[in-house]
Amino acid sequence: MRAITIPEPGGPEALVLTDVPAPTLERGHVLIEVVAAGVNRADVMQRQGFYDPPPGASPYPGLEISGRILELGEGVDSFTVGDEVCALLEGGGYAEVVSVPVAQVLAKPTTVDLVEAAGLPEVACTVWSNVFMTANIQPGQWLLVHGGSSGIGTMAIQLAKAVGAHVAVTAGTQEKLDFCRDLGAEVLVNYREQDFVEQLRASNGNHGADVILDNIGAKYLSRNVDALAINGRLVTIGLQGGRKAELDLGKLLTKRGAVIATTLRARPAAEKAAIVAAVREHVWPLVEAGVVRPVINSRHPLARAADAHRALEASMHKGKILLTT
Amino acid sequence: MRAITIPEPGGPEALVLTDVPAPTLERGHVLIEVVAAGVNRADVMQRQGFYDPPPGASPYPGLEISGRILELGEGVDSFTVGDEVCALLEGGGYAEVVSVPVAQVLAKPTTVDLVEAAGLPEVACTVWSNVFMTANIQPGQWLLVHGGSSGIGTMAIQLAKAVGAHVAVTAGTQEKLDFCRDLGAEVLVNYREQDFVEQLRASNGNHGADVILDNIGAKYLSRNVDALAINGRLVTIGLQGGRKAELDLGKLLTKRGAVIATTLRARPAAEKAAIVAAVREHVWPLVEAGVVRPVINSRHPLARAADAHRALEASMHKGKILLTT
Repeated sequence: MRAITIPEPGGPEALVLTDVPAPTLERGHVLIEVVAAGVNRADVMQRQGFYDPPPGASPYPGLEISGRILELGEGVDSFTVGDEVCALLEGGGYAEVVSVPVAQVLAKPTTVDLVEAAGLPEVACTVWSNVFMTANIQPGQWLLVHGGSSGIGTMAIQLAKAVGAHVAVTAGTQEKLDFCRDLGAEVLVNYREQDFVEQLRASNGNHGADVILDNIGAKYLSRNVDALAINGRLVTIGLQGGRKAELDLGKLLTKRGAVIATTLRARPAAEKAAIVAAVREHVWPLVEAGVVRPVINSRHPLARAADAHRALEASMHKGKILLTT
Repeated sequence: MRAITIPEPGGPEALVLTDVPAPTLERGHVLIEVVAAGVNRADVMQRQGFYDPPPGASPYPGLEISGRILELGEGVDSFTVGDEVCALLEGGGYAEVVSVPVAQVLAKPTTVDLVEAAGLPEVACTVWSNVFMTANIQPGQWLLVHGGSSGIGTMAIQLAKAVGAHVAVTAGTQEKLDFCRDLGAEVLVNYREQDFVEQLRASNGNHGADVILDNIGAKYLSRNVDALAINGRLVTIGLQGGRKAELDLGKLLTKRGAVIATTLRARPAAEKAAIVAAVREHVWPLVEAGVVRPVINSRHPLARAADAHRALEASMHKGKILLTT
């Protein structure tokens, strides 16, 4: 089969379409013929040599795909050959075939086409595990999402609204903010021109954010703590603004706040399975009902993966960037 | 009635026994004739002028007492006049009479004498709310307690052992460590001579701590994060080592860890009531069964409250220091 490999870390041109051996099918796994793959920032970091795949994972990039089941491993009876599915991977999604534990496979929702379904697993699992399972957001509470127009941001806005939470977002252009408003965000902050703490607190009676979903890390740590409401939970899932910063524990203590940092990819298979099961139970019905939809920015052929990475790094996109085989 | 007042913040001599008006009984409260009061670090900070009582609380120090019910407010039917009880307060415990919401009152366990019962509410509520409700420690997991021989430490060791968790402690003398071992601690670290991260990891197969109960704050933040296991939760409840320190979010993210800072006193009455109810359900049966007991260092007459504060500040005590009326 063909897959995108990374012979040497580097810029987008480091992504090279190559003939490689197809994955072998293990017990409890399924083989999937890939139709589309989602592009994520973790793939860019892997391409740059900053994010090695976990032990045992495919060395190729790609954390989510959609496609059709080719073959069932021993012990698998929850799918049939030919089923249209999408799946959360540990790696290797930029390829024509993947092998994945069946517990990480989800049936394609009937409301979503098969290519678009590739944009669902990573954002649905990331948002559900962090905002709902870890931070336990409740109806009526306020969620602040940094990068509201990103793939994760667009899913976070929709899911939070679906459960009756309020949403504030930051983004870097008015066009992105308008897009977030159309998805349901109530407070829109242009981080290039405005302070998100002041804007949020001015908009919600100085309450602040019960939950913050943050991909910036160090650069925003202090202001994120300032933005937290009493009993607020800051969940950092990315370090685009660095990793080390001063934390004022006294301020956190006064708020009875929590600073949590997580990643999805490094979790063991059992935790991934639990997250996918929760997504199947809680998120999939909302997608089937049309309340939540994947937001797709653009599609690129697998052979042009470098273009997809350039688009992601340019940060002008809204929603997910996909590769098609 | 008489109460300890703080006419001017300062050293232990700032505590002055004074005739003051008795508290008035509100709906849903009970009046309690105080037999003993627990002494806590928060009282020392209040005496020094660093920790004002929350709005509406008594201006006098004292966060927990034991005694006998004098009078029931409107709507109270869960106790009878004369009942022996202990209670969690927002303040005012260094006094002959207190008024307290009935939801913060607990019946005196039959296994504990009435004076000793004054040493239970603050430590039981602090440990249960943080280690169990917030950090959700599980059987087989490792708890690291800084200041293992303190009132909170001695309760944390006993409760964690009672649910089948493993316990590591730090303390500053061998005598204190021996005391912690007798209560059930398995890993003993003299912080004056040893590094707690190295000692803990050398003792439990490099696993680290699933939960850390910390009263030091800034000075230990970096090493506490180093000590965390995967999915570990650091709960800071005191800032004896300062409030601001650098946090490595990258390290926290790799561990999928949480840094939580809380305080009990500032919580609204509804949260205090929920915590006391959980203590009544989960901790009290262990005290009744003799599995968990209050650890009392010394008793001082109310008029000698200054001596009690000197003893607490000297940090040579093991367990709770009490005042008796």
